[in-house]
Amino acid sequence: ITEFDATEHPHRRYNPLSGRWVLVSPHRAKRPWQGADEALSNDELPSYVENCYLCPSNTRISGDVNPDYTGTYVFQNDFAALTENTPDSPESDNPVFVSQSARGLSRVICYSPDHSKTLPELSTQAIRGVVDTWVEQIDDLKETYPWVQVFENKGEIMGCSQPHPHGQIWANSFLPNEIADKDKNMLAYYQKQGSNVLTDMVKAELADGSRTVVETEHWIAVVPYWAAWPFETLLTPKAHIKRMEDLSEAQKDDLSIALKKLTSRYDNLFKCSFPYSMGWHYAPYFKDDRDIEHWQLHALFYPPLLRSATVRKFMVGYEMMAESQRDLTAEQAAEKLNAVSDVHYKEA
Amino acid sequence: ITEFDATEHPHRRYNPLSGRWVLVSPHRAKRPWQGADEALSNDELPSYVENCYLCPSNTRISGDVNPDYTGTYVFQNDFAALTENTPDSPESDNPVFVSQSARGLSRVICYSPDHSKTLPELSTQAIRGVVDTWVEQIDDLKETYPWVQVFENKGEIMGCSQPHPHGQIWANSFLPNEIADKDKNMLAYYQKQGSNVLTDMVKAELADGSRTVVETEHWIAVVPYWAAWPFETLLTPKAHIKRMEDLSEAQKDDLSIALKKLTSRYDNLFKCSFPYSMGWHYAPYFKDDRDIEHWQLHALFYPPLLRSATVRKFMVGYEMMAESQRDLTAEQAAEKLNAVSDVHYKEA
Ligand SMILES: O=P(O)(O)O[C@H]1O[C@H](CO)[C@@H](O)[C@H](O)[C@H]1O
Ligand SMILES: O=P(O)(O)O[C@H]1O[C@H](CO)[C@@H](O)[C@H](O)[C@H]1O
Repeated sequence: ITEFDATEHPHRRYNPLSGRWVLVSPHRAKRPWQGADEALSNDELPSYVENCYLCPSNTRISGDVNPDYTGTYVFQNDFAALTENTPDSPESDNPVFVSQSARGLSRVICYSPDHSKTLPELSTQAIRGVVDTWVEQIDDLKETYPWVQVFENKGEIMGCSQPHPHGQIWANSFLPNEIADKDKNMLAYYQKQGSNVLTDMVKAELADGSRTVVETEHWIAVVPYWAAWPFETLLTPKAHIKRMEDLSEAQKDDLSIALKKLTSRYDNLFKCSFPYSMGWHYAPYFKDDRDIEHWQLHALFYPPLLRSATVRKFMVGYEMMAESQRDLTAEQAAEKLNAVSDVHYKEA
Repeated sequence: ITEFDATEHPHRRYNPLSGRWVLVSPHRAKRPWQGADEALSNDELPSYVENCYLCPSNTRISGDVNPDYTGTYVFQNDFAALTENTPDSPESDNPVFVSQSARGLSRVICYSPDHSKTLPELSTQAIRGVVDTWVEQIDDLKETYPWVQVFENKGEIMGCSQPHPHGQIWANSFLPNEIADKDKNMLAYYQKQGSNVLTDMVKAELADGSRTVVETEHWIAVVPYWAAWPFETLLTPKAHIKRMEDLSEAQKDDLSIALKKLTSRYDNLFKCSFPYSMGWHYAPYFKDDRDIEHWQLHALFYPPLLRSATVRKFMVGYEMMAESQRDLTAEQAAEKLNAVSDVHYKEA
């Protein structure tokens, strides 16, 4: 009889945050690829572009003029998916057709006045400015909205329509699916195990090391055991920190270092500006004073590339209808990310 | 005070099958698009291609030679994500790292010997052959596997690496996430309402009509009230049918007509070979004889295009981290699909 070998045999891994499984098929990595090639441009961008809506002093589509900003710059999204004063919707009279009105707002955060510099190419000081902006924005919105989603789409392949480095903030009058599920699942683990699932993970990953991609004084980034995207990572403080506002100055300084190292490894992997969607999760601002001990602040990076700058993983057919599937194990992905430097190739 | 208007105001709609909400932002449809353009080729394909692994009489990468088939043709996927004899994996000793071994197999179904003919371009007789193949395949695998996922990825943009018209079948020793969730949610509705959520939906949609895209004698296709993808549709029998094996000859003949009309409307919408992922859901083959009254056979179509043959909807950033979001309402999408013919533009 053959012994089970996780680098060889198909298996499922359980994501205790989402409550969902992922199918891992390590034997499948040798499959030849005859599908679409992504057109990834490696052109150097200029520092300033006249018709960019995000560059300093330029006029946006709304007619507003950007200030001549030097650090980060935040403005209201001109085509927000949410409105602040949505009227209440009537109750549905059919249990198959249930809806509710939604309130919120969307803002854009320019990371830097420099059109050409993505996160890993900024100084740690400039990245610290981005971190401070995240904290300020959440602070500004948390009284009104129980959920404030901080995120970034990087690269055309991830639906980013503006090469100027920027992230977004969408504030919500409701808990979106992913957050409601995560709250439920983290709480269930806490009630069953008497501990926090992510601080338990940090403890185990610090001891193990096989999935660790970046470790700084206060932060750790791993390819989580249950990663779905090929080079997915989870970045979290080593200490138990429930929300961004609880970070110390030292932890925020150190976060800039961790972010620079992590995103540099990404760019170094396939020597390209590595596309991803990234987002922050943390304890929602519930209106009651319920217990939030089961929460832990963390960022998620979902990069689509699989084998090279032009071959991506498609989450389609089986994945949409049944379950996420990956070809290389989390440990194999971490190994590849660790095989490249944490200093950006353009700076090396 | 303004009255709530679903064609104007952001709201969330609840999907009673997945238990997840979708954020609808109808006011956002006017947003200009400056992002990636999809390269969709409208080249006429030849009926036979020498180096295609799926054409009749050709040699596959495995060395096997395809027969000179005339209808459908099924073969074992040469790079299957699952293996039939996976050994059992050991129990995990840490509650953060949970896994299980997975068994199964993958097969490819060539829809037709003709390299150039996608589903809507086949005769209803040929489509009936595809339907029969689905039924046969499920019948063959249901004793061994509780779940048999029938699906199709169409178009390069949906990760399809072979233009030869084909679908896939992945059999699983486990219930994948989507099926386990759906079983739970359909059962909860059944227990609460005393009726089947999808037959309730059919009743309501037949009465309403504003989301109906195709109606034949035995079948109805709608843009579901809770659709996430812009032109998502759900195709289901009008009668309460729990599994494919329960379909009558008349219902199977009629399914070919419904499939041809639905996929023709899709191609006609942007005058292109409309990409999508499609899959069938139905009562799993549980090993015990539990009640499956809450199940209803249905197919889901998830097409990525949004505004034209080259502008797609990206489910990224906010969607990955928080919640699916759409710009046009389900009713607006149905209206656009109904504005085009259900006869394929190449046949008209
Ligand atoms: O099996 P194929 O067509 O080569 O591959 C395609 O479909 C599979 C099942 O949805 C996915 O896992 C792959 O990412 C996709 O490229
Ligand atoms: O707001 P943007 O950058 O124009 O748009 C991008 O991000 C949004 C939030 O993830 C998505 O809804 C859009 O599909 C995507 O193209």
